[in-house]
Amino acid sequence: MTKKVLMTLLQNKKYKSIHEVLSVYNPVDVADLLETLDAQNLAVVFRMIEKEKAAEVFAYMDNDQRQKLIDVFSMEETAALLDAMSADDAVDFLEDMPANVVTRLLDQVDWATRSAINRLLQYPEDSAGSIMTVEFIELHREMTVRQALDHIRKVGIDSETVYTCYVVERHKLEGIITAKDLMIHDDTVKIADLMSDQFLFVHTTDDQEFVANQFRKYGLIAIPVVDSEGCIVGIVTFDDAMDVLTEETTEDMHKMAALTSANEESYLKTSVFQHAKSRIVWLMILMFSATITGSIITRYEDAFSAIPLLVSFIPMLMDTGGNCGSQSSTLIIRGLAVGELHFSDTLKVIWKEFRVAAVVSVALAVANGIRIYVMYHDMQMAIVIAASLVLTVIVAKMVGCLLPIAAKKCHLDPAIMASPLITTIVDTCSIVIYFRIATVIFAL
Amino acid sequence: MTKKVLMTLLQNKKYKSIHEVLSVYNPVDVADLLETLDAQNLAVVFRMIEKEKAAEVFAYMDNDQRQKLIDVFSMEETAALLDAMSADDAVDFLEDMPANVVTRLLDQVDWATRSAINRLLQYPEDSAGSIMTVEFIELHREMTVRQALDHIRKVGIDSETVYTCYVVERHKLEGIITAKDLMIHDDTVKIADLMSDQFLFVHTTDDQEFVANQFRKYGLIAIPVVDSEGCIVGIVTFDDAMDVLTEETTEDMHKMAALTSANEESYLKTSVFQHAKSRIVWLMILMFSATITGSIITRYEDAFSAIPLLVSFIPMLMDTGGNCGSQSSTLIIRGLAVGELHFSDTLKVIWKEFRVAAVVSVALAVANGIRIYVMYHDMQMAIVIAASLVLTVIVAKMVGCLLPIAAKKCHLDPAIMASPLITTIVDTCSIVIYFRIATVIFAL
Repeated sequence: MTKKVLMTLLQNKKYKSIHEVLSVYNPVDVADLLETLDAQNLAVVFRMIEKEKAAEVFAYMDNDQRQKLIDVFSMEETAALLDAMSADDAVDFLEDMPANVVTRLLDQVDWATRSAINRLLQYPEDSAGSIMTVEFIELHREMTVRQALDHIRKVGIDSETVYTCYVVERHKLEGIITAKDLMIHDDTVKIADLMSDQFLFVHTTDDQEFVANQFRKYGLIAIPVVDSEGCIVGIVTFDDAMDVLTEETTEDMHKMAALTSANEESYLKTSVFQHAKSRIVWLMILMFSATITGSIITRYEDAFSAIPLLVSFIPMLMDTGGNCGSQSSTLIIRGLAVGELHFSDTLKVIWKEFRVAAVVSVALAVANGIRIYVMYHDMQMAIVIAASLVLTVIVAKMVGCLLPIAAKKCHLDPAIMASPLITTIVDTCSIVIYFRIATVIFAL
Repeated sequence: MTKKVLMTLLQNKKYKSIHEVLSVYNPVDVADLLETLDAQNLAVVFRMIEKEKAAEVFAYMDNDQRQKLIDVFSMEETAALLDAMSADDAVDFLEDMPANVVTRLLDQVDWATRSAINRLLQYPEDSAGSIMTVEFIELHREMTVRQALDHIRKVGIDSETVYTCYVVERHKLEGIITAKDLMIHDDTVKIADLMSDQFLFVHTTDDQEFVANQFRKYGLIAIPVVDSEGCIVGIVTFDDAMDVLTEETTEDMHKMAALTSANEESYLKTSVFQHAKSRIVWLMILMFSATITGSIITRYEDAFSAIPLLVSFIPMLMDTGGNCGSQSSTLIIRGLAVGELHFSDTLKVIWKEFRVAAVVSVALAVANGIRIYVMYHDMQMAIVIAASLVLTVIVAKMVGCLLPIAAKKCHLDPAIMASPLITTIVDTCSIVIYFRIATVIFAL
């Protein structure tokens, strides 16, 4: 069903058909479909969706659309929706609401929901605690497979959360058991005999990026989250981990392009003012830093007044330096992000980059030297450019690989040490190198 | 256990302890641990690992280490390892082996393994077919829950593959049923009554990035892969989808930094020559393109001979243009990659970027204009720089947002239209704009 079809059905009041079509749709697609509806139509269609599914659809809707619904809904209706949502989705939604609305809403929901939400709201943003769900299957050692299955049947929660069950004794996590084990063993087998006491877990305060990287590394479906006393307080499931990975990667890419965006809205939803704000900070910093390079150039006024051709090679040198630096920094930043490189590799990285820089710079210098000699028949100029290129490339690669590692060591995000910042630093170096070499060789 | 401890245990021939410690380790961590061992020790330790687990460990090892093992192993031993591996892991491994080794190995493995591998080897690289596994649970409509569970017990395969079961009739996929449904329903319920006929699927020839994006969008555990006749031939599981997402993102980032890396080896494993090769191509292209900017500068020799100060603003203008362009292109490239932006949004994107450019450029121009007026008391120069900045930023943002969208439309990877290429294009534009404005205002 396209948005157009939905509108036509709405206009013709074919509510039954809408209800039937929506009931076969995936919640993600229903949320997509509702995206362009105005408040009134949105409420009409939303109320047609069966309760459980409506909660899921709501979790996938964007903030604007949610706000529209909440404005139309009564407090009771919103509270019922919150009750039907999984606690982590409910928290995601509440975090974007004004505090007084949250308080009033929490008064309306049932006790279990309220206490789950309150607990989740306490964890710091981007921590394991903030992305976990408190719904998980808790079993005990002395249970049998039959009893475990009965228990799962009774609590009956989201399917992605039942595939790993947690064996708990006085809130302490003692072991895990997979749904597969429950499915393939006889009813009378004891949980204690099936559970594995070798399991991975994270702490509530662990960074969400670390949590997501555990999923990537070990291919997990879910990971238990324990508090400082080793008590299990929730689990993180793979679908949330995948969202975190996407979000963190986008954040890295934005930082690497000199964007300070902290907002999670999509490109089109972000206002012009917000966009401008996230871009202007670094642009200003980098623009004023670049004037340093400019003021260095003015010191060599005599040089380029004597040989004006010198000026024409500035863009080529600056660009090549910037590109070399950003190649190295990108490789290192990504290597650090996926856990392929560590601080202990620093010396290996420097030595590798140095050799790569040597190979690359000589190739570039020879190619450009020949071009200049052929075009201008000026051997001295060819040597100046070739020598400047070699030094610039080596400096660029060194700066490009060292800054991200240094940032990591200082607990800063390596991603800010990317292309734009490195380009600005390398620019200054390349101009100094270039004019120094030129003044020596041309004896200016 | 650290690598050091392992070495000490090996030297002291404490094989029993090694065996015991390894048996509680996760296969991923065992592979990590074996990374630095030489061929002989590697084979000794590897043979200590229990067969099923050894196959998993082998799947996580890198190519160098695998090669070492294969060199020491007999053909029979390698074939036994292949038999124990899941078909998709076996294919990953075989794809990196010389063709004659593959042929000899396939002669040794059992018939089922050989046919599964042969089938997977036929699919184009980076297609759904190439990343799927052929092991999945096939059920039939008329089965009961009890029969289904018995069937799962009998085939007993990897746990991530049992959580969604596929209802098949004459090879055609008719519905899916989750393990959760099997677990919470009575033994006598018919599969036909539980299965859902609304399911997502992909085709064998679909691009792996598309497949991975379905996982990201819908939070799936597994997705069925069907051939052109609608017959199910395999499934892709979430852990492989996560690997694809990571791989594709790394590839995008590398492309965005002017790297032509096609190899999947880690940074440290890649040779200096390989590194140099993946960097030199774009550096050469961009270096020679930058000389165009240089030759434009030489045309304005008279201008900067008359007012040498003009030269000192070149780096600031070029850098700001480059940074503005890369901000826009990064936002668009990432937006396209995660499916948040589409070709149909082109006009909206252009209009948004234009307004953002207007806001940002005026802010930068005013800040820099004031600085120049204060520093040099030169109103004309302040106006030249401010006007050049405004135009450069607008051009940069337009180029930065349009090129990735155009690339997408032409079925090229938008990621190549990133920072380095855009910087080079914007450089030329900014120099032309700058000197044009300068010659007019200073009447040169």
